[in-house]
Amino acid sequence: MTTQQLITQIHKKKSFLCIGLDVDLNKIPHHLLELEDPIFEFNKAIIDATHHLCVAYKPNTAFYEAYGIKGWQSLEKTIHYLNQNHPEIFTIADAKRGDIGNTSTMYAKAFFEDLAFDSVTVAPYMGKDSVEPFLAFKEKHTILLALTSNAGAFDFQTKALDGKELYKLVLETSKNYKNSENLMYVVGATKAEYFADIRKIVPNSFLLVPGVGAQGGNLQEVCKYGMSDHVGLLINSSRGIIYASNETNFADAAAHKAKELQHQMEVILKR
Amino acid sequence: MTTQQLITQIHKKKSFLCIGLDVDLNKIPHHLLELEDPIFEFNKAIIDATHHLCVAYKPNTAFYEAYGIKGWQSLEKTIHYLNQNHPEIFTIADAKRGDIGNTSTMYAKAFFEDLAFDSVTVAPYMGKDSVEPFLAFKEKHTILLALTSNAGAFDFQTKALDGKELYKLVLETSKNYKNSENLMYVVGATKAEYFADIRKIVPNSFLLVPGVGAQGGNLQEVCKYGMSDHVGLLINSSRGIIYASNETNFADAAAHKAKELQHQMEVILKR
Repeated sequence: MTTQQLITQIHKKKSFLCIGLDVDLNKIPHHLLELEDPIFEFNKAIIDATHHLCVAYKPNTAFYEAYGIKGWQSLEKTIHYLNQNHPEIFTIADAKRGDIGNTSTMYAKAFFEDLAFDSVTVAPYMGKDSVEPFLAFKEKHTILLALTSNAGAFDFQTKALDGKELYKLVLETSKNYKNSENLMYVVGATKAEYFADIRKIVPNSFLLVPGVGAQGGNLQEVCKYGMSDHVGLLINSSRGIIYASNETNFADAAAHKAKELQHQMEVILKR
Repeated sequence: MTTQQLITQIHKKKSFLCIGLDVDLNKIPHHLLELEDPIFEFNKAIIDATHHLCVAYKPNTAFYEAYGIKGWQSLEKTIHYLNQNHPEIFTIADAKRGDIGNTSTMYAKAFFEDLAFDSVTVAPYMGKDSVEPFLAFKEKHTILLALTSNAGAFDFQTKALDGKELYKLVLETSKNYKNSENLMYVVGATKAEYFADIRKIVPNSFLLVPGVGAQGGNLQEVCKYGMSDHVGLLINSSRGIIYASNETNFADAAAHKAKELQHQMEVILKR
């Protein structure tokens, strides 16, 4: 999917919502556990109920790997279901991968070709030759970790590096990578005040923003400082939507929560 | 496996060699491709021929994920084969994972419990709460990326951060993480001169050292500056050993290359 197609979807659906499919068997409705593939059935019901309210889905691969081969099968079925039934949806493999040259190419193939995701999250620590193999794939997007929303972000990301915070150096350095037009960035919503500085470095890039909702980030604040001329934001919510209820009505409850966020986004987009 | 058990194995085998099982279907002997699971058959043959010469095996998960569910099955079979037949071998899932809190716990479970690896490589970018969930597992080891052996290491890792290079800050900061006795570090062999500085910060920790052989690192130099009182080094070689030949004699050729390295290590250990 091209960035322009994503922007078109945002305006069509009046939404820049991304729904995180972080499925934990301990948290999903009990009645699903009797089915052959509870994780896929859960995802399918959530997708069917919410696809008109969001522009992206983001499965975090850890939740699938934790169930071994069965989990991997659930992930495959989920992405195939999305690509077959909702090809207009932007898909994100939240895998936070990163390795050297030919190994990064192996990861890129796994997520972009075999699983046919539109994008994958990548950790920047190993630098240029760990990121560029992902960027080489046309109409695929590499979402680089910049400033994450967890407490540990202050261990290294916000430390000053040659006079500049590490996350800012990541933004600036990566702009010079080959095919950097395929870059997006993860920026946590718990630090809305940072968005103004970030927009000075990457005025147009899409930012994937976790931490609205469960982690306490504020949608209004993030949009005030973080929105670009072409929206440039994907706001992710996982637990706040998919675990709105763990009764048989869970999909309707999720849609209700997604609708609330979509409505707030519609108001913001009208301004 | 405890660190002491690993040290005992090193002295018993007179080797601190780790063999990287980075299996690429394009590089393995042609006759294996006719078998049902070529990747596992390749690994099994390599393990059978080399297990007495090394103390650790390190599959890089990217090479397995690239083949989807079939690849994941090959990885499962490989680790089960190792744990059943060679429980004295230290096993490393080279996965370079890293995510927030409960998500890191999911990854840790996947590698430490389901697959029963002794250790996993983890990226430090997200800080404390992305690393500590791995450290909570008893007799399991978290191998944190410090200074990698690729060109991109100079993008961020060697940049001065509040007057100190990022990789040194990673070493120092992580020493204060809970259960930090379960930490080891990845330090690339292409920069032997850095080992002296690193040993000032982590005098006793085990260092996993890729880049000897194919990437040009020198074993003598690394040992001179990097060896601790209890060895403290695992030297990894992947391509140089496993692709020594792609004929039917590939396993013997691999054993021959492993023996060369083991012999050099035996001489160094005698000093």
